Amino acid sequence: MLTENNGVTAPKGFRAAGVACGLKPNGALDLALLASDSDCACAGVFTTNRVQAAPVVYDKQVLATNPDSIRAVVANSRCANACTGDAGLEDARAMAEAAAQAIGRRADQVLVLSTGVIGTRLEMAKIRAGIADAAPRLSIEGGADAARAIMTTDTRPKVYALRFTHYAIAGMCKGAGMIHPNMATMLAVITTDVRIAPNLLNQALHAAVAKSFNRVSVDGDMSTNDTLLVLANGASGFEIGDLEIRDFTNALTQVAIELAKQIARDGEGATKFVEINVTGAASEHDAARVAKAIANSPLVKTAIYGADANWGRVVCAAGYSGVEVEPNKMALWFGDVNVFARGTPTNFDEADSTRAISGADVTIRLDLGMGRANATVWTCDLSHDYVTINGKYRT
Amino acid sequence: MLTENNGVTAPKGFRAAGVACGLKPNGALDLALLASDSDCACAGVFTTNRVQAAPVVYDKQVLATNPDSIRAVVANSRCANACTGDAGLEDARAMAEAAAQAIGRRADQVLVLSTGVIGTRLEMAKIRAGIADAAPRLSIEGGADAARAIMTTDTRPKVYALRFTHYAIAGMCKGAGMIHPNMATMLAVITTDVRIAPNLLNQALHAAVAKSFNRVSVDGDMSTNDTLLVLANGASGFEIGDLEIRDFTNALTQVAIELAKQIARDGEGATKFVEINVTGAASEHDAARVAKAIANSPLVKTAIYGADANWGRVVCAAGYSGVEVEPNKMALWFGDVNVFARGTPTNFDEADSTRAISGADVTIRLDLGMGRANATVWTCDLSHDYVTINGKYRT
Repeated sequence: MLTENNGVTAPKGFRAAGVACGLKPNGALDLALLASDSDCACAGVFTTNRVQAAPVVYDKQVLATNPDSIRAVVANSRCANACTGDAGLEDARAMAEAAAQAIGRRADQVLVLSTGVIGTRLEMAKIRAGIADAAPRLSIEGGADAARAIMTTDTRPKVYALRFTHYAIAGMCKGAGMIHPNMATMLAVITTDVRIAPNLLNQALHAAVAKSFNRVSVDGDMSTNDTLLVLANGASGFEIGDLEIRDFTNALTQVAIELAKQIARDGEGATKFVEINVTGAASEHDAARVAKAIANSPLVKTAIYGADANWGRVVCAAGYSGVEVEPNKMALWFGDVNVFARGTPTNFDEADSTRAISGADVTIRLDLGMGRANATVWTCDLSHDYVTINGKYRT
Repeated sequence: MLTENNGVTAPKGFRAAGVACGLKPNGALDLALLASDSDCACAGVFTTNRVQAAPVVYDKQVLATNPDSIRAVVANSRCANACTGDAGLEDARAMAEAAAQAIGRRADQVLVLSTGVIGTRLEMAKIRAGIADAAPRLSIEGGADAARAIMTTDTRPKVYALRFTHYAIAGMCKGAGMIHPNMATMLAVITTDVRIAPNLLNQALHAAVAKSFNRVSVDGDMSTNDTLLVLANGASGFEIGDLEIRDFTNALTQVAIELAKQIARDGEGATKFVEINVTGAASEHDAARVAKAIANSPLVKTAIYGADANWGRVVCAAGYSGVEVEPNKMALWFGDVNVFARGTPTNFDEADSTRAISGADVTIRLDLGMGRANATVWTCDLSHDYVTINGKYRT
C-alpha cells in the first residue's frame, strides 16, 4: 500500500509539521519539524565537499556520540547556514536546542538541516518563532507540509512511502540544483518504524544510497549542505537483524530510488526526465562511471532538450569517461531505436529517433559489449530555464 | 612584431589556402591546406577520448614513423569523420593522398584534420575537388582563409603570431564547443621556422600545452577529434638545441596561451571571458584542479552570465574539487573586490561586486592560503545561447 501524501509520517510513531516563519519573503512554508514518539536509531550520509555547512558539522558531531536516541529533525529553507564560521555553528546548535525544548527533549537528540543561500546567517528570531509555532502542530497529516517547507527552487514537494507487512519506510527530500552523483546529493529524511541497531541501519543506508542518490545528477555541482538522514523508531515492533537486513536494505533502496528519481525529474529548468542505462560493462563501477559521464555532459543534456537524437555526443561522453571502452563493441538505443552499433551509426529512421526523445520521459541505453555488469543513472535535460534560474538565484 | 592576420603563414616558408568545396551548405570556406616549402619536424597532441576519430588515428600513425619530413596539413570542417569505422580511416588516408598528390609529395608527409558532425562519412568528391582548388592558391596571404575554413560554431577565426629576433611562431585554431581542459582541446596548428629535432619539439609542445590548451574549458566535454599539431620547417636557419629550448618553450607557450584564450573567449554562446586565478595552493597541480572545478561548474558559469557575484558557488566548487582546502584559509576576489575571507563573506558592497563581473572580461581570484603555487584557467559563461546552439547543432 502506498501512502504518498504525507511521506515521512507514514511509518508509525512519527509526527511532523511545516510552518511559515518569514524566511521566505512570499510567506511560503519554510520551517519543518519532524518528531518521533520514541527514541530513534539514526544514520546519516553527508556531502563530501570540503566546505561543509554548519548543520552538517553539527549533525556529524551528534551522530558520532548519540546514534540511538534521536527524537527530532528541524529543517529550514532559504538559508543554508554555510560559510558562516563559528557563529553559524552556534546558530545550528541553538536551532537544535530550541527544537529540543519545544518537544521536551535534550539538544543532542535533535538534528538540523538547512538549505538555501550560502554565506548569510540564520535569522534566529524567526527560526525560534517557527519552531514554537510548529511544535504544537505536529501531526501525521503534517508530513505533507514538512515536505513543502524544505523546498527551494523545487517546483513540487517530494515524498514517497512504502508499507510492507511488518513495517513501513517513507521519505521526503528536496533537490533541484547542485545535484551531483558523488554523494548524498540533497536534503532527504527517511523514516521507518522498524527496530534496528544504528550500525546495521548505517550499513543499509550506505548500500541504498549507492544505488539511488549517488546515481542521480542534475548539473554536476555538489553542495555544502547535502545530507541524507534515516530514522528508525521501532514503533512497529518488528526487529531487523542479520536475517532481515537484506530484505530491509532492498526495501530502503526502493524508497531511496523513488525519491532520487523525483529529484532528477524536478531538476532546475528540467523539461525531460532521463534514464541512462549502461549495460554490458566489465564491472558495475565501470557502468556507473560511463552512465554518469553521459548524464553530466552538457552537450548530451542540451541535445535531449532540443529533441536531437545526437548519438555522437553520447558515444563521445562514454569515450572520455575514463573507462576502457571500444567503439566497435558499443551499441546505443534512444528508447527502443538502435542508433549505433559496431562503431558506426545504424541505418535508423531519423523520425523514429526524434520521437524516442521527444516525450517527457527519455531512456538511453548504451551497451558497452565488455561484460555483464550494468548501472542506471537518472538525470534531466539542460534547458533555457536552467540558465535563467541560475543566473538569478541569489539576487 | 605581431602579424596576426595571416596566422600560420607568418613564419618563413609556409603557405596556406582556404576554399569552399561545398561541405558547408551556405558556401562558406570549409577546406584548409597548409604547406611548407621544406620538410618539417612535427609533434602532435591528441584527444585522450577512447573514441578517436579517423584523422586522429591516421595522424598518430604517420607521426609514429615520420615525425621529421611533414610537408602539409589538410583540414575540413562540417564533418568530423568520427565513428565512421574502417571506411572512415580509408577516407582520411585518401584525403592525405589527394593533398600529397596536389603538392607533389608522399602521402605520409601529409597530416589530416576534420571537425564537425560525428558519424557521417566525408564527401570525398567534394574533398578532392577542394584540395585541387586549394593547392594552386597556396600563398602567405592564404593563412587568413585557412583559419576561416576550419571554423564550425566559432564566431570568428582564431590566429596569432609572434616574431622574435631569429624566428617566428604562429598558429590558428578552432574551438567553441566540446572544450575540456584534460587534453588538446580542439583543432590547432602551430607553425614555426626554427630548426629543431622532433623529440625536442615534442617536449616543448607538451610543456606549452600543459599551461595553455589544457587550462581552458568551455563545457567540460572532450571531443573525439581534438588535435594540436606543431610544424617546424627550419626556414629561418635558427636552430633550437639544448641551450635554446627553454626560451623556445616559453615562446611557444606564449602563442599557445593566446590561442587557447581566444577559444575560451569564443565559447559557444559566450557573453563573457572569464579568467580564474587560483593562488596560495600547496602545488601547481592543486591550483589547476581547483581552478578547473570552478571553471567547469555550471552554477558558477550561469551566475557570471547573470552578473550575480555568487561567491558561495565558487567556494563550493573549490570544496568539491578533490583538493584539500580549508574554507577558513580561503580568500576570494571578483575583480579587485574581496568578497570572502577566513570562512565568511566580507562586508563588501554588492554594487561593487556586481560591477566587477558585469563587463565582458571577468577575473576571479581564489587564494587557498595553503602554499605558494598558482595556476590560471580560462573559460566563459554559460548563457541561454549555449543551450540554443547545442539543442540544435546536428539537425
